[in-house]
Amino acid sequence: MSHNTFGHLFRVTTWGESHGPALGAVVDGCPPGIRFTQDDLQIFLDKRKPGQSRFVTQRREDDIVRVLSGVMPQEDGSMITTGTPVSLMIENTDQRSKDYGEIARRYRPGHADYTYDVKYGIRDYRGGGRSSARETAARVAAGALARQVIPGVTIRGALVQIGKHKINRANWDWAQVNENPFFAPDPEIVPVWEAYLDEIRKAGSSVGAVVEVIAEGVPAGIGAPVYGKLDQDIASNLMSINAVKGVEIGNGFGAAEITGEENADEMRIGPDGKPLFLSNHAGGILGGISTGEPIIARFAIKPTSSILTERRSIDADGHEVEVRTKGRHDPCVGIRAVPVGEAMLACTIVDHYLRDRGQTGRLK
Amino acid sequence: MSHNTFGHLFRVTTWGESHGPALGAVVDGCPPGIRFTQDDLQIFLDKRKPGQSRFVTQRREDDIVRVLSGVMPQEDGSMITTGTPVSLMIENTDQRSKDYGEIARRYRPGHADYTYDVKYGIRDYRGGGRSSARETAARVAAGALARQVIPGVTIRGALVQIGKHKINRANWDWAQVNENPFFAPDPEIVPVWEAYLDEIRKAGSSVGAVVEVIAEGVPAGIGAPVYGKLDQDIASNLMSINAVKGVEIGNGFGAAEITGEENADEMRIGPDGKPLFLSNHAGGILGGISTGEPIIARFAIKPTSSILTERRSIDADGHEVEVRTKGRHDPCVGIRAVPVGEAMLACTIVDHYLRDRGQTGRLK
Amino acid sequence: MSHNTFGHLFRVTTWGESHGPALGAVVDGCPPGIRFTQDDLQIFLDKRKPGQSRFVTQRREDDIVRVLSGVMPQEDGSMITTGTPVSLMIENTDQRSKDYGEIARRYRPGHADYTYDVKYGIRDYRGGGRSSARETAARVAAGALARQVIPGVTIRGALVQIGKHKINRANWDWAQVNENPFFAPDPEIVPVWEAYLDEIRKAGSSVGAVVEVIAEGVPAGIGAPVYGKLDQDIASNLMSINAVKGVEIGNGFGAAEITGEENADEMRIGPDGKPLFLSNHAGGILGGISTGEPIIARFAIKPTSSILTERRSIDADGHEVEVRTKGRHDPCVGIRAVPVGEAMLACTIVDHYLRDRGQTGRLK
Amino acid sequence: MSHNTFGHLFRVTTWGESHGPALGAVVDGCPPGIRFTQDDLQIFLDKRKPGQSRFVTQRREDDIVRVLSGVMPQEDGSMITTGTPVSLMIENTDQRSKDYGEIARRYRPGHADYTYDVKYGIRDYRGGGRSSARETAARVAAGALARQVIPGVTIRGALVQIGKHKINRANWDWAQVNENPFFAPDPEIVPVWEAYLDEIRKAGSSVGAVVEVIAEGVPAGIGAPVYGKLDQDIASNLMSINAVKGVEIGNGFGAAEITGEENADEMRIGPDGKPLFLSNHAGGILGGISTGEPIIARFAIKPTSSILTERRSIDADGHEVEVRTKGRHDPCVGIRAVPVGEAMLACTIVDHYLRDRGQTGRLK
Repeated sequence: MSHNTFGHLFRVTTWGESHGPALGAVVDGCPPGIRFTQDDLQIFLDKRKPGQSRFVTQRREDDIVRVLSGVMPQEDGSMITTGTPVSLMIENTDQRSKDYGEIARRYRPGHADYTYDVKYGIRDYRGGGRSSARETAARVAAGALARQVIPGVTIRGALVQIGKHKINRANWDWAQVNENPFFAPDPEIVPVWEAYLDEIRKAGSSVGAVVEVIAEGVPAGIGAPVYGKLDQDIASNLMSINAVKGVEIGNGFGAAEITGEENADEMRIGPDGKPLFLSNHAGGILGGISTGEPIIARFAIKPTSSILTERRSIDADGHEVEVRTKGRHDPCVGIRAVPVGEAMLACTIVDHYLRDRGQTGRLK
Repeated sequence: MSHNTFGHLFRVTTWGESHGPALGAVVDGCPPGIRFTQDDLQIFLDKRKPGQSRFVTQRREDDIVRVLSGVMPQEDGSMITTGTPVSLMIENTDQRSKDYGEIARRYRPGHADYTYDVKYGIRDYRGGGRSSARETAARVAAGALARQVIPGVTIRGALVQIGKHKINRANWDWAQVNENPFFAPDPEIVPVWEAYLDEIRKAGSSVGAVVEVIAEGVPAGIGAPVYGKLDQDIASNLMSINAVKGVEIGNGFGAAEITGEENADEMRIGPDGKPLFLSNHAGGILGGISTGEPIIARFAIKPTSSILTERRSIDADGHEVEVRTKGRHDPCVGIRAVPVGEAMLACTIVDHYLRDRGQTGRLK
Repeated sequence: MSHNTFGHLFRVTTWGESHGPALGAVVDGCPPGIRFTQDDLQIFLDKRKPGQSRFVTQRREDDIVRVLSGVMPQEDGSMITTGTPVSLMIENTDQRSKDYGEIARRYRPGHADYTYDVKYGIRDYRGGGRSSARETAARVAAGALARQVIPGVTIRGALVQIGKHKINRANWDWAQVNENPFFAPDPEIVPVWEAYLDEIRKAGSSVGAVVEVIAEGVPAGIGAPVYGKLDQDIASNLMSINAVKGVEIGNGFGAAEITGEENADEMRIGPDGKPLFLSNHAGGILGGISTGEPIIARFAIKPTSSILTERRSIDADGHEVEVRTKGRHDPCVGIRAVPVGEAMLACTIVDHYLRDRGQTGRLK
Repeated sequence: MSHNTFGHLFRVTTWGESHGPALGAVVDGCPPGIRFTQDDLQIFLDKRKPGQSRFVTQRREDDIVRVLSGVMPQEDGSMITTGTPVSLMIENTDQRSKDYGEIARRYRPGHADYTYDVKYGIRDYRGGGRSSARETAARVAAGALARQVIPGVTIRGALVQIGKHKINRANWDWAQVNENPFFAPDPEIVPVWEAYLDEIRKAGSSVGAVVEVIAEGVPAGIGAPVYGKLDQDIASNLMSINAVKGVEIGNGFGAAEITGEENADEMRIGPDGKPLFLSNHAGGILGGISTGEPIIARFAIKPTSSILTERRSIDADGHEVEVRTKGRHDPCVGIRAVPVGEAMLACTIVDHYLRDRGQTGRLK
């Protein structure tokens, strides 16, 4: 079934296809009284925008976001949310639908082409239609709004692995992330990835990646113990990003390998008289509820299935065919998934913050 | 926020604490006309039941499930669903609440004790209250009902890793799974795990694990492309299980390491004239929609935080304390998570099956 | 579709049939820290209990409510909510299923028998199964808990019409409501209704009624302007009560007959310096949001279709038959609907209170 | 709380204010494969469009609806739904925001001005912002799409009362409805309403009305017995329309006045061998489930609070003021509510149709 909404109190509904006139998001339940500018949103869309380096798709889209509702325009050009739905729209400008004629009836292996046709009996093959990573522009717009809601929360992301090449975590430096085309926090990995991706790109191939997103400043106590878990909704929302095949929190799959002693995050009273965690194996979440420590999540992105190499497949008429995808594609979609992951984490945290305020009245 | 319901058309709400009078699930939206017996449910509860080997908690619970509503009893003792909510209840019988007096105000490191207190200002410390793995009995009951809904679907699970000890996948034999206390599909790993867990148990320690769950016979075309993705809901529902820290589908995190050529599941027309996938890296899901291939998911479970070793922590009054957990605990909660994972996968698939039938009218 | 849940943050799921072993409600999202006693709930169940006068069904049920989860029992016998789901159960004790053998395959005109069979292909004919007014006991239990959540809110109801006999509103006296078997606020109507209902009862007939429910002390500002309107959810939840065919707020259908001048509730600043409404045609809700004035809703209940008079109908085999319903029925189900309407209003207001606190953070 | 979505499988989210750049609806869950044209939608927007007679607001809006997503354009200019969200947008073109300067800080009695300010602390006073009846254009667009989903269902509405002037039901003639500016089914009432509304209009006043909406051809068996009732969702969705204060189904409040014998819809087997209802007091719904008879609902609309007569009120600074509303308003908003009521009924029925197909698999 189609269900293009996520969130319970801060609810985001996205719509739109790769090659339709526009795409967008409706953010319902945003608290009133939040002042922001067009630039506060645009800055994140620009981060996700295609065509910014040779390592991402060469499609050219300005990705200008328009705010169509839910705000009172102010004299200084800023806007204040009124508590009603905020409609955000991004027009599609650079569509080369003719690139896709060949795959109108052919199924790209590893792509949603086949499953769409089975399910819906119809498919917007132009640019992948709804399954295009272009849909994530709407998420980034919604996430940019979410970032305005809770003061003191910082949400950042970085690429930590491309193919088998992982960063050296000892080199982690947030200041580096925007200094290279990969959102890499480790400057030493940059030349390695450059060389590797050039090779991939020239081969018309693609490769997978791992993204890490971190939220700092999240108050302790948001989430819930069993269902409605904060980590559950983070997993759900990250997994909803195109091409994601795995999600982990804190130690993640590494937690399977260690003992209770190793995994326990011990506590002391800090110099400020407040509870202090001595480690953060839990990734900031215990029993589905935030601990006050940084919330840490990672997600794995498969290589895009749009490759130039011929692969065996079938077509909608039941014939065996060979398929290769022309058009402009990301050799590593994981790169542009960094701002998307940040956006999803931001929306999830705001939603849980508002939920908690509703149920317990504890937060302001 | 509390939100103890999952599913959209096949909706499961669970309730209950470890040491209250009972726990249960309300299954709303179950199709009418499904005939089943008490045994059809009990068999799965028995699989999850504590006290069945020295490798799980020695708590003794019969875990008899009662069906309180939503069925017409038949003369042969079976029941037929009527389409109204099916209420399932399991009474708690073996409660030693006094075991927990010591941790009433002390926070076990790595446990939800601290976060509960921050969030709710109150905590049922007896057996972990709502955060106890005992809650999963209700899920298993709901999952057992879900298994009755779609004919031809088989859902099975196995333990594939304890600590650093992984099975040899070449030895995978489903027939072995119920022949050892670990739900291990590889008979050669059994003595390794036995020796290792005996050691862990004697040390009063605990260890993590990885569970794999597989659904075969799921028709192609259930799920949705962006949100409402089948893999998204699987990730959400598996992550909602206590102590789970990571979830992956098909190749999962392994997909990050390979190229588009390697990851693509090529297709041919099979001897029966139907589409045939030559591999299943996708784990049965492309673009959020089932391919008809087996659906494969794995989840990582952290070591339980209830260990006998003293750890540094604080108490509710802001004192620094040392904590160790008495009581009867699972040295590896991952073992009993196998039937729980199966149940969550079963509920998720049934929910999406009904959703698809609703939106497209395609399935019967 | 089955969807036995209402509410968004204060969510109530009910389950159970008239002649099953039990029925109940799961209240999810109840704020933590609310102290209450068994009696705080029981008092409202007793009000709805059958067999209390000759004007209601003679079925005998103790309707003792049990709290199975979501609370910490206190030494004084009271309970405190922990923020986890509160499961409430009421056992069915007086079931005379044999009364219903005759209508197992016959459709009572005006009853849900026929539509159940069309929809589900199966029907629990014993006592009407899920469609029995007995289900409302679970709502009353949930409503009793809801009443504990917001201090200062008073929710009361009264019967204002039976058949064509309406109360004289000038005689309205809340003190009278519990002094007669009808929840009548007008003592002068009591003998009229007695005589009329005796006649109806002796004829084996039934008659409709109108109930009015009022909430006082609700803070201004809860609800929302277009959807998520407070009056919309009140209408929805009152209409969900069995046999209800109409709902109105404030002036209701009377508002269709008057002009904007007559309908406007003018405002002044009161002696306390606060906004003061000079009238309350709106029933305490403007634009879907509470004004701070009493919230007033009325709902119309049709005569029960279980009557002793023979009516023409058909059976499940397609034969034309005559049907009359034996068993013990309410000559005027509207009487016992008074506490049910109160419960639904209480749950709706609490839900919106928590929603508002979530979105705006304005309320405590 | 804001919750601008209705429906469960056929979900409609609306956004937009009276004087923003645009307003719209996102329809999520629409079945794939439905072919329609721009005109199929526009015809219903034209019916609701302002400025069509002297009895409605003189605001001039073209109300051209644009389809931004969820469809594949066809060569003949039609579109086919793909199963992904259908985004519908209507631009606002005739905005005279300066008309509203005077009420920027004054509360119109009977309007949402005061409650908005209490709740949100901010209010888009221009044209009523989100509370403007202009929002209903988005509903009409969504309803027009809903009408395409189930073949054989006809949904129509009519105005049956203005002020105290009711139609003569014996004169009901659907052919008349589009022949007069009131959607009146009784030609004899037209001159009465003309004279009466001219008087109201000249006095700068307003008056209430009652609308009746009817769905024919709805298959028996959609809905659910207790919650998720078809009549419950109709009540909820009609009550969500601006200014609605009451809703009734079938006999509605009239059912309170009669006996079980009078209210029962007797059944026979018809000449075609199918079940035949001899009357339709139930308005096509028994126990929350459709009977196959026409579904009949009525709703009462209060007089608009925007009137030229001075009324006592207060302003946002706590001063007592006199308020009268300039601008272009509907003397009887009930007239333009007819297509809105039809749209809400259409959406509700389609949603339940899909839900039923999901749960029972009974419908195609």
